[in-house]
Amino acid sequence: MRGFYIGRYQPFHDGHRHMVEEIVDEVDELVLGIGSAGDSHTTRNPFTAGERVMMVTKAVEELDATTYVVPIEDLDRNSVWVSHVRSMTPRFDVAYSNNPLVVRLFEEAGVEVRGSPMFRREVLEGAELRERIIHGRDWADLVPETVADVIREIDGAERIRRIAETDAIEETGE
Amino acid sequence: MRGFYIGRYQPFHDGHRHMVEEIVDEVDELVLGIGSAGDSHTTRNPFTAGERVMMVTKAVEELDATTYVVPIEDLDRNSVWVSHVRSMTPRFDVAYSNNPLVVRLFEEAGVEVRGSPMFRREVLEGAELRERIIHGRDWADLVPETVADVIREIDGAERIRRIAETDAIEETGE
Amino acid sequence: MRGFYIGRYQPFHDGHRHMVEEIVDEVDELVLGIGSAGDSHTTRNPFTAGERVMMVTKAVEELDATTYVVPIEDLDRNSVWVSHVRSMTPRFDVAYSNNPLVVRLFEEAGVEVRGSPMFRREVLEGAELRERIIHGRDWADLVPETVADVIREIDGAERIRRIAETDAIEETGE
Amino acid sequence: MRGFYIGRYQPFHDGHRHMVEEIVDEVDELVLGIGSAGDSHTTRNPFTAGERVMMVTKAVEELDATTYVVPIEDLDRNSVWVSHVRSMTPRFDVAYSNNPLVVRLFEEAGVEVRGSPMFRREVLEGAELRERIIHGRDWADLVPETVADVIREIDGAERIRRIAETDAIEETGE
Amino acid sequence: MRGFYIGRYQPFHDGHRHMVEEIVDEVDELVLGIGSAGDSHTTRNPFTAGERVMMVTKAVEELDATTYVVPIEDLDRNSVWVSHVRSMTPRFDVAYSNNPLVVRLFEEAGVEVRGSPMFRREVLEGAELRERIIHGRDWADLVPETVADVIREIDGAERIRRIAETDAIEETGE
Amino acid sequence: MRGFYIGRYQPFHDGHRHMVEEIVDEVDELVLGIGSAGDSHTTRNPFTAGERVMMVTKAVEELDATTYVVPIEDLDRNSVWVSHVRSMTPRFDVAYSNNPLVVRLFEEAGVEVRGSPMFRREVLEGAELRERIIHGRDWADLVPETVADVIREIDGAERIRRIAETDAIEETGE
Repeated sequence: MRGFYIGRYQPFHDGHRHMVEEIVDEVDELVLGIGSAGDSHTTRNPFTAGERVMMVTKAVEELDATTYVVPIEDLDRNSVWVSHVRSMTPRFDVAYSNNPLVVRLFEEAGVEVRGSPMFRREVLEGAELRERIIHGRDWADLVPETVADVIREIDGAERIRRIAETDAIEETGE
Repeated sequence: MRGFYIGRYQPFHDGHRHMVEEIVDEVDELVLGIGSAGDSHTTRNPFTAGERVMMVTKAVEELDATTYVVPIEDLDRNSVWVSHVRSMTPRFDVAYSNNPLVVRLFEEAGVEVRGSPMFRREVLEGAELRERIIHGRDWADLVPETVADVIREIDGAERIRRIAETDAIEETGE
Repeated sequence: MRGFYIGRYQPFHDGHRHMVEEIVDEVDELVLGIGSAGDSHTTRNPFTAGERVMMVTKAVEELDATTYVVPIEDLDRNSVWVSHVRSMTPRFDVAYSNNPLVVRLFEEAGVEVRGSPMFRREVLEGAELRERIIHGRDWADLVPETVADVIREIDGAERIRRIAETDAIEETGE
Repeated sequence: MRGFYIGRYQPFHDGHRHMVEEIVDEVDELVLGIGSAGDSHTTRNPFTAGERVMMVTKAVEELDATTYVVPIEDLDRNSVWVSHVRSMTPRFDVAYSNNPLVVRLFEEAGVEVRGSPMFRREVLEGAELRERIIHGRDWADLVPETVADVIREIDGAERIRRIAETDAIEETGE
Repeated sequence: MRGFYIGRYQPFHDGHRHMVEEIVDEVDELVLGIGSAGDSHTTRNPFTAGERVMMVTKAVEELDATTYVVPIEDLDRNSVWVSHVRSMTPRFDVAYSNNPLVVRLFEEAGVEVRGSPMFRREVLEGAELRERIIHGRDWADLVPETVADVIREIDGAERIRRIAETDAIEETGE
Repeated sequence: MRGFYIGRYQPFHDGHRHMVEEIVDEVDELVLGIGSAGDSHTTRNPFTAGERVMMVTKAVEELDATTYVVPIEDLDRNSVWVSHVRSMTPRFDVAYSNNPLVVRLFEEAGVEVRGSPMFRREVLEGAELRERIIHGRDWADLVPETVADVIREIDGAERIRRIAETDAIEETGE
């Protein structure tokens, strides 16, 4: 059985890692979708899809299941989103999510969805992590070591701090 | 003479129906444009274009005028919006709107626009209706009966309730 | 039961009209999708979506079934095309087509498709009609009278003749 | 040496003019990029790219340096934004900006960026100017005379006032 | 009076230059639109919009009229093309073209169009020029000297020769 | 050192596999880009990005190097293509290609490119393979066994045969 788990992974952290471990107990293969793949260099989405591919791949490579890590660009058309996801990923049997819209879209398309009380808890951790990086507080122990290495390799903390003040090109030269 | 009246129709309600009746007194044929046609499954735009095509068509089919019901996808370029609308619709002589931007765009393009104090009153009814559905209050008597039938056929109330909490895919798996 | 029949309708002609009559024997309601809705002013696609909406609506309005006439913009992503069509149209139970790709896409999406030997015969009629218009030969008797009226109202024959030499903006000013 | 300076120029005002004069002391040729070129007819972005091309060209034409005035459409992909800008402009050696995101993107792409304390001061002047126009207060003495002429030629003040109430098409017909 | 003249200018050559001189006799200001602005690095469209902005600006800067040089990205929607062009350019009174589609689109939009037997002659010169560059034959004397300088500055001849064999990324790694 | 190798992989065959083995001798990690990721269900591009992700991943998973398999959607803007590729992939030091356009684009962006006489030989193998499938000739021994398994799992041969006659939706209902 193949499962699908989507996140923005900005960055991939221990909460994600924990979920992946739980899911892998239930499936043979796992597809990890990297959402909002086209976004980067904003406070909310600092890392490029490629940087996140690297983070996620390294963070799950010692797992026992075959994993696929696939960037998913936003389509801004909810009604075709499930088709879009499916066209970009190996065929999967079950999707994991607690996001009500994602759950609804998969259900309307006839895809089985599984949630868990755990999903909820992680909700704000991405924002919390990025805040810590901006203010120079401890963050490296909240992500897998391989992820911390990637963030250092790409000088990610500096990028986040630099764009914290303004992350909109449109503010330019008003 | 052919008239044009645009709305998002989320859903088509008695306020819209009333306007259509007024307009039909002034024109021979009426083009009903369904705005933001690509949006669906959000709190603000729960229904797909196709679902709204069905609602509007059934709500106006016993009228005496020939009507055209046409989905209009957003283009996010105000300067070409009038051309876009015109390319998607039968040629029309007058547009009906109270939205200041829509009025301005049509006027700059040399299209006659008519408003009415009535338009204003309906402004928040769409939001009000969706609120009622979410909280399980009476809503069916505010829309034409054929529209209520469509919403039931597609299980629309359940969809609105389910996505009321979160309607953004990007919130996924933070 | 609701059926779906898609065509580019450049223009809507007696072959299409004949098919529609056959389909209407099998369904209660018919959705007519106008394909390549964003294209116009080319030799192959001379008419805008709006002009075709007018042609098709008038050509089928005296039929006994409820009909919906919906422009469908190209998406250039075969894998999401069925979802796109469904989001733009009232829910349908069966699609009518002889185009192998369209048939395959609907089948992979689990939609019933019906074809007919008749469909094939009409294949080149659109091109033939446009050729006749360019060369000033008889064409009006190959389309419903209401369609001929629309083409005259919008001065369509002149447009086709004018762009017959070049229909690509990119040829400009080489 | 060629410099690049980007702004939305809604409208081009004396603050921009002052910056251009400073930059021209440091470079031989100056490329002026008009940002958010596709936006117009909103409170924040009232003027079309073409109107702004006219404003900026006339406001700098008596300068001693060769200037290029180039509309830049938004791409909404920060990671390719620098490439996009470069493909639309003559090759430049240094970019002028104080916007932290713009600075970061250019630096990651290996482009030299120069800022100045002056840039900051102008930040809200565009908004201030548009407010003055809406409320009928003096504004013409804050922009180059040629710019005031353009705004009058296109009846720009009236446009801004008309759309001040609502500048979203999506509000239509709720 | 302001005139508009569009071309792809791949590259800007003496035929274009000659036309510009003729037009400038009839208008006070001239807007030069650079078509297919998003295309580059193909046999047919070797130069970026920015490179062409530089070529055209330098080739016309000693003319007596005010000129505007504006890149126009393709929109692939003929029905909104005129609006798109207008939104990107200063308001113009007359368009110059011999391309039948362009003429038709402007006429349907109510814009005066002027042609000339001269336009026709230049039609294949762009292709001829690119062929000469590929095969190392004389080309520099067919373009304004400033244009030849730009092509040399950006190593344009080498680019054209290199991509002459294949100019499609999609051929990759079949 | 990290290398990048792009192909459409329609399907991934022994020629690709052979190249990957050669590249892996020179790099520590390999990024495999799946080009034209949005295309599928055509004669030339029968498989979805997701199906190809599965093929490629399984075909290289027993290799000794860390590999990343990343779909790359076409952007149709050569001038930003390299930035687009980089944003979707882990940072790489060298790109492998024999496609003249790809080589040129990477070189203009300052990326080292390596080719090999081997690349050329494989050029038509994808087309040859698809021809064999259409005509029911042997094909399975030209692809890795895991790839043949995937094609069978998704009933890929049938899809290719079905769309061989027409693979354009636009042909519909002419």
